[in-house]
Amino acid sequence: MELLKNRIIAEGKVLPGNIVKVDSFLNHQMDPKLLHEIGKEFFQRFNNKGVTKIFTIEASGIAVAIMAGLEMNVPVVFAKKQKSSNIGENMFYSTVKSYTKGLVSNIVVSKDYLNQNDKVVIIDDFLALGQAALGLIDIIHQCGAALVGVGIVIEKGFQDGGKLLREKGIKVESLAIIQSLDNGKIVFK
Amino acid sequence: MELLKNRIIAEGKVLPGNIVKVDSFLNHQMDPKLLHEIGKEFFQRFNNKGVTKIFTIEASGIAVAIMAGLEMNVPVVFAKKQKSSNIGENMFYSTVKSYTKGLVSNIVVSKDYLNQNDKVVIIDDFLALGQAALGLIDIIHQCGAALVGVGIVIEKGFQDGGKLLREKGIKVESLAIIQSLDNGKIVFK
Repeated sequence: MELLKNRIIAEGKVLPGNIVKVDSFLNHQMDPKLLHEIGKEFFQRFNNKGVTKIFTIEASGIAVAIMAGLEMNVPVVFAKKQKSSNIGENMFYSTVKSYTKGLVSNIVVSKDYLNQNDKVVIIDDFLALGQAALGLIDIIHQCGAALVGVGIVIEKGFQDGGKLLREKGIKVESLAIIQSLDNGKIVFK
Repeated sequence: MELLKNRIIAEGKVLPGNIVKVDSFLNHQMDPKLLHEIGKEFFQRFNNKGVTKIFTIEASGIAVAIMAGLEMNVPVVFAKKQKSSNIGENMFYSTVKSYTKGLVSNIVVSKDYLNQNDKVVIIDDFLALGQAALGLIDIIHQCGAALVGVGIVIEKGFQDGGKLLREKGIKVESLAIIQSLDNGKIVFK
């Protein structure tokens, strides 16, 4: 998606540890018009697949997911990160390790909002090692829903998350895939 | 906003402790079309005020704020809740006590995304005791920006947050104000 790639080149900051910061338009300050275009692009990529629900994880996945939901005309459910180990009975839960923060979070979703009749697209802002996606997929399996695919705004192509998911036969649609950040330069695949 | 009130009546669940749960369309599962209508309503309420930025707090404020930002055509910034006390130099920070969780969180915002030239509308899903709004207002004061007003989806009118803010002369626009939850019945003001 050229509009997105241009924005990443213009505003993305490469930090030590293979981090690319896009805080100015995606995950701290957010550009609603760009996110709306991203939502339209996800609609195109998952059109005619009978999608019934979008599934994401708080916090920075929410804005992108709601725009995709607006275009696809389906509800959006976000998994909540939970510090306590006190999981309610009516919840699915899994765990996610955060690459940037080095923390393991419980993630929980109410059983009221995902079920075996759902056809689900996972939407998230970043795909790196794939830990968040794997946690969300685990929950989709627990509830017996069908996974239609995974939509990602920015995939770090030099890390293993995308490969891991695609090797499982999952349709992964990334709007921008970064091949390398060597010498502080952003190169797309 | 009738559309919203009807939805609250149809799907809201009253729980002990004066909690009204609207998890099915607002803050766990989210209805993008309804949130879009809410965004349009906020645009109407804050139209012609020279707003330059919308400010909210993760996680459940984000979806509503991005829809308001889409309609008002301004960037949306969300404050991040931070567990560590390690605040970076380039951050504004304040504290917020959560009514439902009984926790105090640090909230942080990069100085890159709010400044003295900004005219800011705060958007959030709920207003109860006003703690989140006060934390966000504190940050707006720190950065020297102007506060245009506060837009709330659901105000608990029987708690003091709205009164507290209005007594400070702040324009508070709540799309649904709940007057009481007595005997498990939702009554609007």
